Amino acid sequence: MELLKEKILSEGVVLSEKIIIVNSFLNHQIDAGLMEAIGAEFARIFADAGATKILTAEVSGIPPALATGMKLSVPVIYARKTRPSTMGGDILRARVRSAPTDTESEIVVKRDYLSPDDRVLLIDDFISEGYATCALCDIVRSAGARIVGVGTVIEKAFLGGRSRFEEGLDAPVHALVRITHMGEDGITFDE
Amino acid sequence: MELLKEKILSEGVVLSEKIIIVNSFLNHQIDAGLMEAIGAEFARIFADAGATKILTAEVSGIPPALATGMKLSVPVIYARKTRPSTMGGDILRARVRSAPTDTESEIVVKRDYLSPDDRVLLIDDFISEGYATCALCDIVRSAGARIVGVGTVIEKAFLGGRSRFEEGLDAPVHALVRITHMGEDGITFDE
Repeated sequence: MELLKEKILSEGVVLSEKIIIVNSFLNHQIDAGLMEAIGAEFARIFADAGATKILTAEVSGIPPALATGMKLSVPVIYARKTRPSTMGGDILRARVRSAPTDTESEIVVKRDYLSPDDRVLLIDDFISEGYATCALCDIVRSAGARIVGVGTVIEKAFLGGRSRFEEGLDAPVHALVRITHMGEDGITFDE
Repeated sequence: MELLKEKILSEGVVLSEKIIIVNSFLNHQIDAGLMEAIGAEFARIFADAGATKILTAEVSGIPPALATGMKLSVPVIYARKTRPSTMGGDILRARVRSAPTDTESEIVVKRDYLSPDDRVLLIDDFISEGYATCALCDIVRSAGARIVGVGTVIEKAFLGGRSRFEEGLDAPVHALVRITHMGEDGITFDE
């Protein structure tokens, strides 16, 4: 996706070989036109997946998931990082490992919103180490639902995160851009 | 907005006279078609406001703000509740009071994204006591920017939250629905 590559090159801030800041257009501040194009691109890629739900995790997954849901006319669920006091009933839970801090946290989804009949498209802003995607997969499986696709805006392909969730996954994985290297010498994409 | 009223009446769960849960279509799970209609309605209402930025607060303000931003082709900023370790530079801060718990928290916005030239449209999912809107107003004013409108999906009008931020505000305030009463006897709208 050329528009996205151009944005990453012109506005992304590489903090280290593993961390890139995209606060000016993807997180914190959102370029609305770019986000609409991202939604349209995911909708095109997953047009035939027959998704009945889109699942992401708060906070930064919400914009691309919502933009995609609006194009596909599919409900969007965002997993919460803390269970709100107002969320009663049965809850689906999964553990998320954070590589930078070597800690674990939890995400939760209200069971009412995922049924065994659901065909779930996972959308997120980043795939880095792959742990967040693993947790979303765990949520879908604990609901007895089926994963029909995984889409990410940016994949840090050099971290090999896909290997953490591709085993046993019978669904396509698509990144709008794949970064193969980042550093003081710049950013390299895989094509 | 009739579609929204119908959703609130059919799926909203009144927990108390002050709390209504809308997790099935507005928070946690988002009805994508409804959210698109919400964005279109805000875009129609604020078409002539000349907004250059839309500002909301994470988490549940993001969907209506983004849906509006995509219709108006205006960048969307979501204030963070905690400053991420990756957010450097100068930061705008405001205090948010929480009425239910009588505590205070903070929201932060990177100063780079709001300039004195900006005309800012505030969009949120709820106006309850008005404290969150006050904090967003404080952020805009501390940037030296101008507020050109305030839009909320649902206003709990009976809490009188508008009185907390309307003084000195030279901009229209619009709620897509205004709830005048909630309780075991049902929900009443103002028209």
